[in-house]
Amino acid sequence: MEKLWRKNLRDIEPYVPGEQSSEKDIVKINANENPYPPSPKVFEAIEQFDSSALRFYPNANATPLKQALADYYDVDIKNVFVGNGSDDVIAIAFQALFNSDLPIVYPDLTYSFYPVWCSLFKIPYKNYPVDSDFRINVEDYKEQNGGVIIPNPNAPTSLGEGREFVEKLMEYNHDSIVIIDEAYVDFGGVSSVPLTKKYDNLLVTGTFSKSRSLAGLRIGFAIGCEELISVLEAVKNSYNSYTIDSISIEAGRASVLDDEYFRDTCNKIIKTRARVTNEMRSMGFKVLDSQTNFIFATKDDMSMKDMFKYLKTKKVFIRYFSVPRINNYVRITIGTDEEMDILLKELKEYVK
Amino acid sequence: MEKLWRKNLRDIEPYVPGEQSSEKDIVKINANENPYPPSPKVFEAIEQFDSSALRFYPNANATPLKQALADYYDVDIKNVFVGNGSDDVIAIAFQALFNSDLPIVYPDLTYSFYPVWCSLFKIPYKNYPVDSDFRINVEDYKEQNGGVIIPNPNAPTSLGEGREFVEKLMEYNHDSIVIIDEAYVDFGGVSSVPLTKKYDNLLVTGTFSKSRSLAGLRIGFAIGCEELISVLEAVKNSYNSYTIDSISIEAGRASVLDDEYFRDTCNKIIKTRARVTNEMRSMGFKVLDSQTNFIFATKDDMSMKDMFKYLKTKKVFIRYFSVPRINNYVRITIGTDEEMDILLKELKEYVK
Repeated sequence: MEKLWRKNLRDIEPYVPGEQSSEKDIVKINANENPYPPSPKVFEAIEQFDSSALRFYPNANATPLKQALADYYDVDIKNVFVGNGSDDVIAIAFQALFNSDLPIVYPDLTYSFYPVWCSLFKIPYKNYPVDSDFRINVEDYKEQNGGVIIPNPNAPTSLGEGREFVEKLMEYNHDSIVIIDEAYVDFGGVSSVPLTKKYDNLLVTGTFSKSRSLAGLRIGFAIGCEELISVLEAVKNSYNSYTIDSISIEAGRASVLDDEYFRDTCNKIIKTRARVTNEMRSMGFKVLDSQTNFIFATKDDMSMKDMFKYLKTKKVFIRYFSVPRINNYVRITIGTDEEMDILLKELKEYVK
Repeated sequence: MEKLWRKNLRDIEPYVPGEQSSEKDIVKINANENPYPPSPKVFEAIEQFDSSALRFYPNANATPLKQALADYYDVDIKNVFVGNGSDDVIAIAFQALFNSDLPIVYPDLTYSFYPVWCSLFKIPYKNYPVDSDFRINVEDYKEQNGGVIIPNPNAPTSLGEGREFVEKLMEYNHDSIVIIDEAYVDFGGVSSVPLTKKYDNLLVTGTFSKSRSLAGLRIGFAIGCEELISVLEAVKNSYNSYTIDSISIEAGRASVLDDEYFRDTCNKIIKTRARVTNEMRSMGFKVLDSQTNFIFATKDDMSMKDMFKYLKTKKVFIRYFSVPRINNYVRITIGTDEEMDILLKELKEYVK
């Protein structure tokens, strides 16, 4: 019997997540995870959590977490949206805010999930290539569009843009909604959160997965005017009312409240990044000026693909993208100083 | 200046989640939550979880949780899908499996999220009214359709259908995909999971929120043939690769492994349900034969809306739906025996 029900299956190319390894004793600097544990306050919050309360649904508005973020960013709780990782937040934002027949626009070198969401939600899109220095040209974004999404700092380039760039972007785009994806901003970038008070068509998204060492808990957020947030809430509440579990709400809140630990951790990574950048440059690598917790690097006279493979044999896992324009670059997450010493030693060995 | 960007906002009626109360000392039997805590093994798994591992992304395939479910249901791990609550699982299933120009079909008294997902994903739908005894007439489902979803047992009616019903449903629907939503099946219903080996167009969904006392953790699952599961995975991986956090994966696994506690808890609820049903019937209530952790009841000579309001003043929170056909019914979650004694006392008082 022919299986006619097959015609109802969604025809979609699955997104393939980055390589994971369960191997022990590897230097895992391939997923932009934080090398430091989360704040001790997070440990405490989880220890003190009363598991018998798990029989209840979570707080549907995730109020304790939202309030902590509102206080942190000096906005009202009505300006804060939270979700199951920033992927969930941005996916909801695409559905909530990108409903035009015109294409949405974003740079051609950027987070690889954007075209995947466009495909899933059937949103037309268009790319503007970054320039030969991997910089985003704000003048490209003058053309009429159905929405704009820019990661700032950008990935995998590691380059950040300043306040002037975003102000210009907003000036050129008062008729569409602009999302600034700030997954990496805490490592030296300039946040546009304060601009959400000036521009009500601006949404800024963030994540707890990088700077807060909580990739395992799945917490993302967005900040914007009350009207934008209310449409995000409407879409979210039409999908799944409870996306953040009760433990994550408390642990996430504890992380936000411990600002000292947060700043210390970010500063340690920034310091290590400067050292690794310098050492790699002195070995002849071209290393972009990173504002993130990773560096993007190449060496003109060498195959980065081969180097990536070589490092793997040495149990050092970095990231290589087989993508035009950047297929002779590698992305290296900033780990602890000890991890970076192993990387630098292996690189010296290889370059020799 | 006119705000033209507003035209790109998604126009959607927000789903309004059921009432929550942060009041203490209430008898909270309005959200079908389990009155018993999760298994002690869940407490242990959370206590033993090493929070420093939260800096890593979760296992993208949630393998420890999936494997536990595969063993429990005697299927292969490739037949198991997991998500952020069964709302997430069913929402993904709607996107993955309901892609026809023909309407999907489901009963008119049922889970109120189905039409919300149809609206969000622009899926046409059609209802078949349940009969005057709130029974689903399987003969209605002979007509050509774009997919079928039936909750079994159904909510808020509490009524379950047997194996014969599902076999007939599958016989009538070999050209479309059938989802059986088994959120409440563990309280005396007949599961269709074994039928997924016979029918590869059958998907069965379940949740940890009711029978496993883990509403706060957000875990749902689906069981079906490898082809259906792979399309669910493709859609999920096009939305958010990591929907279940690292703690939930371990805690959920611990729950599945503790079958004795699980059966004990379900049996306690079934026993309490029988007692409450009998006592309410002897007070003159009509109580449907529940196969769930709640009962659906009315009293012909009384306003259930007034009774619902009265009980609230006595700090007993039950659920009332202002919906045609059932607007003189109440839904009462089965709590502990002590909670039910308070309910019964207040009901006796009120009926007098």
